[in-house]
Amino acid sequence: MWFYGDGFLNCDFISFGANAFIDCFFFFCEGFWTVLSVVLAESALETVPKELWRHSQIRKYAEKKGKKPQLLLLDRSCHHVAMRSLPESEKRGRPDIVHFSLLEALGSPLNKEGLLKVFVHTVSDNVIFVNQETRLPRNYDRFLGLMEQLFELKQIPPKDTPLLTLTENTNLSRLMEEVNPDYVVAFSRRGSPKTVEEAVSVIAEKKNPLVIVGGFPHGTFSESTIKLANEVVAVDREMLETWVVTARVISEYERQIGLPAKRLKDK
Amino acid sequence: MWFYGDGFLNCDFISFGANAFIDCFFFFCEGFWTVLSVVLAESALETVPKELWRHSQIRKYAEKKGKKPQLLLLDRSCHHVAMRSLPESEKRGRPDIVHFSLLEALGSPLNKEGLLKVFVHTVSDNVIFVNQETRLPRNYDRFLGLMEQLFELKQIPPKDTPLLTLTENTNLSRLMEEVNPDYVVAFSRRGSPKTVEEAVSVIAEKKNPLVIVGGFPHGTFSESTIKLANEVVAVDREMLETWVVTARVISEYERQIGLPAKRLKDK
Repeated sequence: MWFYGDGFLNCDFISFGANAFIDCFFFFCEGFWTVLSVVLAESALETVPKELWRHSQIRKYAEKKGKKPQLLLLDRSCHHVAMRSLPESEKRGRPDIVHFSLLEALGSPLNKEGLLKVFVHTVSDNVIFVNQETRLPRNYDRFLGLMEQLFELKQIPPKDTPLLTLTENTNLSRLMEEVNPDYVVAFSRRGSPKTVEEAVSVIAEKKNPLVIVGGFPHGTFSESTIKLANEVVAVDREMLETWVVTARVISEYERQIGLPAKRLKDK
Repeated sequence: MWFYGDGFLNCDFISFGANAFIDCFFFFCEGFWTVLSVVLAESALETVPKELWRHSQIRKYAEKKGKKPQLLLLDRSCHHVAMRSLPESEKRGRPDIVHFSLLEALGSPLNKEGLLKVFVHTVSDNVIFVNQETRLPRNYDRFLGLMEQLFELKQIPPKDTPLLTLTENTNLSRLMEEVNPDYVVAFSRRGSPKTVEEAVSVIAEKKNPLVIVGGFPHGTFSESTIKLANEVVAVDREMLETWVVTARVISEYERQIGLPAKRLKDK
């Protein structure tokens, strides 16, 4: 098992751009701390696709919001009718999944300790890097507004040290090359039955582990995602929501590396 | 340790009213299953209080929503200015805390197995009983609408088997009498340092344990809440959000009673 150190060295990732951001992070962490990377993959987070811009439901919604359709997030709770004709419609238009899961991840003691990296890979092959200092809006409408701004400007805040960075046309495979994990576990109902405790006992021994959790409401990972994992694990006989799996993996990881006791001792 | 059985006997709680609902639940469970009760206490969930009905920010908001102020939920993200004059303002107006925490609790394998009871006690001494079959809206605005309907009609759906029941003027002490737990753990920064694993190891041995998690954003439990607990525990040196604590307590409880392995075996 790799132990973390007693502190965390902050470095100003931001001026280096997305790739340098990751390099810098792992350069400083390597040999000192074990960092868990969590990727919400194929996440149902995207702007309204072009084929729906002229749909009456989208046009009305855009008018109400005072924005162009291409600058709005696709959201099933508002665009259900318009979404019927979309390919893989059942996997798309659920920004709330990313919202809840990020709140779970960013609020964890593991993140507070600087030992968690969170990436959101979207259904349209964008990758969002989430700085661990990010404090997301708790209000859903504000989260939508923030994500819309991110899709438009590619980084938030646009002119200061970014907390969120969006890189376009970056598939999961490219992200893996950047992070260069030594072990990848994907959580999917199609995987081999294993409890979270058993799955985490493998990654807790690794130096740079990465877990993939599906950021979509229905369906399964694409074959290209499955191929990236050393192991595909089913942790329950029923489908569990993304935020439920995310919270369980992170808290079990914290438990196995002894983080809760350490943080209480350092009080 | 008390083990759960292989199934769960559904009973039609609803026609009995709130008290009979609880009696019925524990009557059937006693001796067969260990049920964990989770109470979100002093939760920041209330309708706009009378002293704010005439505030210009509230009047504008009510007009936009097409509802009377007394039928709207207090929400800091919209009523920040109006809330400044409220007593204990920092603890109030955060329905999102209940929303996220309920989604974590209701989506857990423990709940799917019928071994979790969730209660929301509010800052104004209302208690909401959440039927484990409840599928809450993921969309925040719809959740607000649902809660507003609940505060108005006292049960949802109003004329069918209720999934949510609101009982007015029921303080935590009265709720405890109804549930009659054999051990109560409250999670608070004011408590003794103990990891979630250590705290859960005590309640996992009990027959009818109850945990109290604060459903508010800042501040601490009132003295009357603290007095109800056999033990007050601080699980981290920093404040953790309600949904983070809720997820950790439930998942650790599942692990200690062996639920994940059992559910995979039953696949």
